[in-house]
Amino acid sequence: MKIRIAAAQINTTVGDIKGNIELIKKNIEKSLNYGVDIIAFPELSITGYPPEDLLHNEEFIAKNLNGMKYLSTLCKEIICFVGYVDKNIETNSIYNSVAALSEGKIKFSYHKNFLPNYGVFDEKRYFSSGNINNEVKLLDYKGIKIAANICEDLWENGPPDVFNFQSSAGAELIININASPYEIGKNDQRIKLLSSKSKINKCFSLYVNQIGGQDELVFDGGSMLSGPDGQLLCSSKYFEENLMIVDIDIQEVRNLRKNNVIKNNKISPKIIISQVKSLKKSKEKLIPKTNIIKTDKLESIYKALVLGTHDYITKTGFKKSIIGLSGGIDSALVTVLTNDAIGNNNIIAVNMPSRYSSSSSNEDSKLLCEKIGVEFIELKIETIHQSFEKTLSKIFEGTEQNVAEENLQSRIRGTIIMALANKFNYLVMVTGNKSEMATGYATLYGDMAGAFAIIKDIPKTLVYELAIYRNKIGPGSPIPDSILNKPPSAELKPDQLDSDSLPPYDQLDRIIENYVERHMTIDNILEKENTLKNGAKKEIIEKIIKSINKNEYKRRQSPPGIKITSTSFGKDWRMPLASKWDEKS
Amino acid sequence: MKIRIAAAQINTTVGDIKGNIELIKKNIEKSLNYGVDIIAFPELSITGYPPEDLLHNEEFIAKNLNGMKYLSTLCKEIICFVGYVDKNIETNSIYNSVAALSEGKIKFSYHKNFLPNYGVFDEKRYFSSGNINNEVKLLDYKGIKIAANICEDLWENGPPDVFNFQSSAGAELIININASPYEIGKNDQRIKLLSSKSKINKCFSLYVNQIGGQDELVFDGGSMLSGPDGQLLCSSKYFEENLMIVDIDIQEVRNLRKNNVIKNNKISPKIIISQVKSLKKSKEKLIPKTNIIKTDKLESIYKALVLGTHDYITKTGFKKSIIGLSGGIDSALVTVLTNDAIGNNNIIAVNMPSRYSSSSSNEDSKLLCEKIGVEFIELKIETIHQSFEKTLSKIFEGTEQNVAEENLQSRIRGTIIMALANKFNYLVMVTGNKSEMATGYATLYGDMAGAFAIIKDIPKTLVYELAIYRNKIGPGSPIPDSILNKPPSAELKPDQLDSDSLPPYDQLDRIIENYVERHMTIDNILEKENTLKNGAKKEIIEKIIKSINKNEYKRRQSPPGIKITSTSFGKDWRMPLASKWDEKS
Repeated sequence: MKIRIAAAQINTTVGDIKGNIELIKKNIEKSLNYGVDIIAFPELSITGYPPEDLLHNEEFIAKNLNGMKYLSTLCKEIICFVGYVDKNIETNSIYNSVAALSEGKIKFSYHKNFLPNYGVFDEKRYFSSGNINNEVKLLDYKGIKIAANICEDLWENGPPDVFNFQSSAGAELIININASPYEIGKNDQRIKLLSSKSKINKCFSLYVNQIGGQDELVFDGGSMLSGPDGQLLCSSKYFEENLMIVDIDIQEVRNLRKNNVIKNNKISPKIIISQVKSLKKSKEKLIPKTNIIKTDKLESIYKALVLGTHDYITKTGFKKSIIGLSGGIDSALVTVLTNDAIGNNNIIAVNMPSRYSSSSSNEDSKLLCEKIGVEFIELKIETIHQSFEKTLSKIFEGTEQNVAEENLQSRIRGTIIMALANKFNYLVMVTGNKSEMATGYATLYGDMAGAFAIIKDIPKTLVYELAIYRNKIGPGSPIPDSILNKPPSAELKPDQLDSDSLPPYDQLDRIIENYVERHMTIDNILEKENTLKNGAKKEIIEKIIKSINKNEYKRRQSPPGIKITSTSFGKDWRMPLASKWDEKS
Repeated sequence: MKIRIAAAQINTTVGDIKGNIELIKKNIEKSLNYGVDIIAFPELSITGYPPEDLLHNEEFIAKNLNGMKYLSTLCKEIICFVGYVDKNIETNSIYNSVAALSEGKIKFSYHKNFLPNYGVFDEKRYFSSGNINNEVKLLDYKGIKIAANICEDLWENGPPDVFNFQSSAGAELIININASPYEIGKNDQRIKLLSSKSKINKCFSLYVNQIGGQDELVFDGGSMLSGPDGQLLCSSKYFEENLMIVDIDIQEVRNLRKNNVIKNNKISPKIIISQVKSLKKSKEKLIPKTNIIKTDKLESIYKALVLGTHDYITKTGFKKSIIGLSGGIDSALVTVLTNDAIGNNNIIAVNMPSRYSSSSSNEDSKLLCEKIGVEFIELKIETIHQSFEKTLSKIFEGTEQNVAEENLQSRIRGTIIMALANKFNYLVMVTGNKSEMATGYATLYGDMAGAFAIIKDIPKTLVYELAIYRNKIGPGSPIPDSILNKPPSAELKPDQLDSDSLPPYDQLDRIIENYVERHMTIDNILEKENTLKNGAKKEIIEKIIKSINKNEYKRRQSPPGIKITSTSFGKDWRMPLASKWDEKS
């Protein structure tokens, strides 16, 4: 009872229905050459994920449905599971669905039961839920029973427990298609879950995820297969397209189940079985060898940032990118990441020193660019700075220097970099990190001006770790030691240092993580800090949390960045602007 | 069987739990003086609406619960219905709830059954649903049965139909508490709905809504009472706080029901009745006269914009506002609106002419400010403009003039206005309208720089209508005819007019409305245009829709504005940035 199955880990683009279908077609053709019986594609492969409010567009839904019809005609001698948007014309409801295609037809369509509506997900905004309580749909191919479900259906234990409903109805192979975004540590959870569901239900489980960047999300792939004993059998590389092909023997399921029928203690849904006759297989070839791929934290994060950057630039139709280099660690890391994403020929770095910039800032920036072969421009802002001061002199007369003067320099730089971007069609990379975004230590329309903020979800301490990691793995060792070792400074007034207005970054980053990601109270954070040698005092914690709360207006107008933590400042974090909430009140 | 009921139409602030409780307390005390039996407050009065991700904050939930406990101690001789967040400690679920307070206790808590999760609403992100299928909770006061439900419970006909469940369980007065944002035409729907539910269920229905601005939403109030025959008995003023007190005779319900019991054909939920003993009433006074308030479209929109502006400025803790005056209609209307919101003493208008600005732009701006008594500053940008040109001259050498040069001027203005704002703590008002936001006819970090975009959801044609309306109603006739009559221009290059790159505004605005608000396809829009004398051609429609789709990146970084249509560019409109969707592909 051997069959050959494939997981097509592809990189779709939202809205590019034609392009996505081409990509699916190519993988079907390749699989046919390998004599694959069953191939599965990620969630909403036809539309790209997440399509967001494009789902309100009738044309969009119609073209996706036509695309699915077209694909079904290609699947004569193969069974194909593809994610798409199904529509009930009578009720006008739409469903996040997976179609089972074979013999040139849509054999059935499964509707996702559990719609995530938390974090970055808004699926209840669009979709109606499937109802596995009513019916379980199976494909019968040579007597082998196959079921499919979607993403969150794996994570929810129910009721209804989708895996349990499907296996108790007889499914021996369950395919779970996903558009599951990367997040630190999430993959370990996925593996545990898949393994546990497979073991409990004594079935093969094929997990198929997409890869690629889509706005603030990066999908990491890691498609995998678990055996009916819960053992992970193979997995795909992370952050790369891959067609994983593997042979499985359904007899293993039957041996395990012999004495133990899978029970569904809840209710008895109707079971609908669609038959697929024996497929006319092409000459079977040797399939590529599969492995179990391991990855570590820094490697994953770095790859996530590179892929997310590459895809944001290319999927928005740009070729080149421009970055303002300050001589600091943030812009250095962003430059190297962009370089790794789109190549040094496609990047312009511009250093815009003011009267407060140290000469080393300029030299370090230049050195970095030399090391990676990126074009370096210097544009001094002194003349412009003076012209602003002159224009504002009368109205500012007699006032104290404040943030107005500091921000002015940053906004001059923002204006210059946008002028270059507009003139030469560059995409501007923004260089702010998560510690800055949290505390508002950045200038709106100044250093925050630009299209994409690669390290927006990377706390400053992790910025250093990633820089050191990148120097270590090569190629080259691009980030100069002088940049790694200098104390952080915005250089917007004489001898300014970040530490003048912020606590040490290790304290700051812990507080941000505990407040933003873990939703901890001041008291709980303090309790945790008190157990540490270098723990923050209560006043510091209160000050940081206050600054997080009051800087929402800056974040609201900030460009998107790549989510890598459980709560990034993006769709994950939806805070009111006008709010009088104060933790201490 | 007469009782005295009150609807407290208050203006809460998100996060200001202390302040909101004070406001509730004041209204309870006032009602006690009038001998009111039952008073009702809007949805989530204690937390403010919408609290968004503050709902993930444990402290926030805890303080809201403590607030409710405190309020219950105040309600000894009155029955009070207040919106708050209830929590089930065992499951850690939270509910959008209304508590019935009396005799110093919480008599029951009703959990909202229908959670809106469309448009601007994300309630399924936070709340679990109530389950009226299981139990209906009633208050029994002198034999009169009272029930309460929340907002969407009125709009959904079910199953379960909440009004039907409550009236069939015996409710004679049903209180529906709301945080229902303003939208053109929505109030007529509310009146129809309330009237129809009352008539079908033969009950008095009290609709209580809040007023006030909260980020992009404005709540318009219009609290009202419908009789058991479906007749609207009285309503509160729109956009103003109000305590509406009215006497009702429950005998009317009983007379109507005598021969017609209200049936619930579905199921029989458990009915839980909490008794309230006779309240010790203070000496009853004559209550204020009530009316049915009517309003027209332009009046409503204008009031919505003024209140939304006032509340955004004050609720974010600002006192003064600065506006860049170009001499055009948009900035003129924004200035007058801000003036009507916070008074002329709190506004600075700044005109920043470039070499392309006509002298009339400056004169018209000055005239406007004179008419309303607003401080007027002029800052010429020529020197700064030249310094940028000089700095960029080498790198721009030999290139064609493009949008880079145009945007430069706009960004210089953005930088100046932000410098003034930072220096003197002004809130910057942005002046772009919906037609601009749709087509991207605005400069990021330039004229889009600022905190609040009052007319972001007002199409250009409506901008003119509102300007004329404001001149008509007075006080004064602030907007000069010269501004009303000049052809629109961005004045970023010589002799530039909007009509050089945009179709006539009446065509443009129809296309935007049909595409953005009605989700119509190109073909459907064309069909509609073809029936008009001045209908747009297919190329124009395609061009406009393309520009709407490709300018999402600008809107993503734009400041919030006030929603007045069914789909504003804000929480209503969630589009991908990297998207290859093209209607024509």
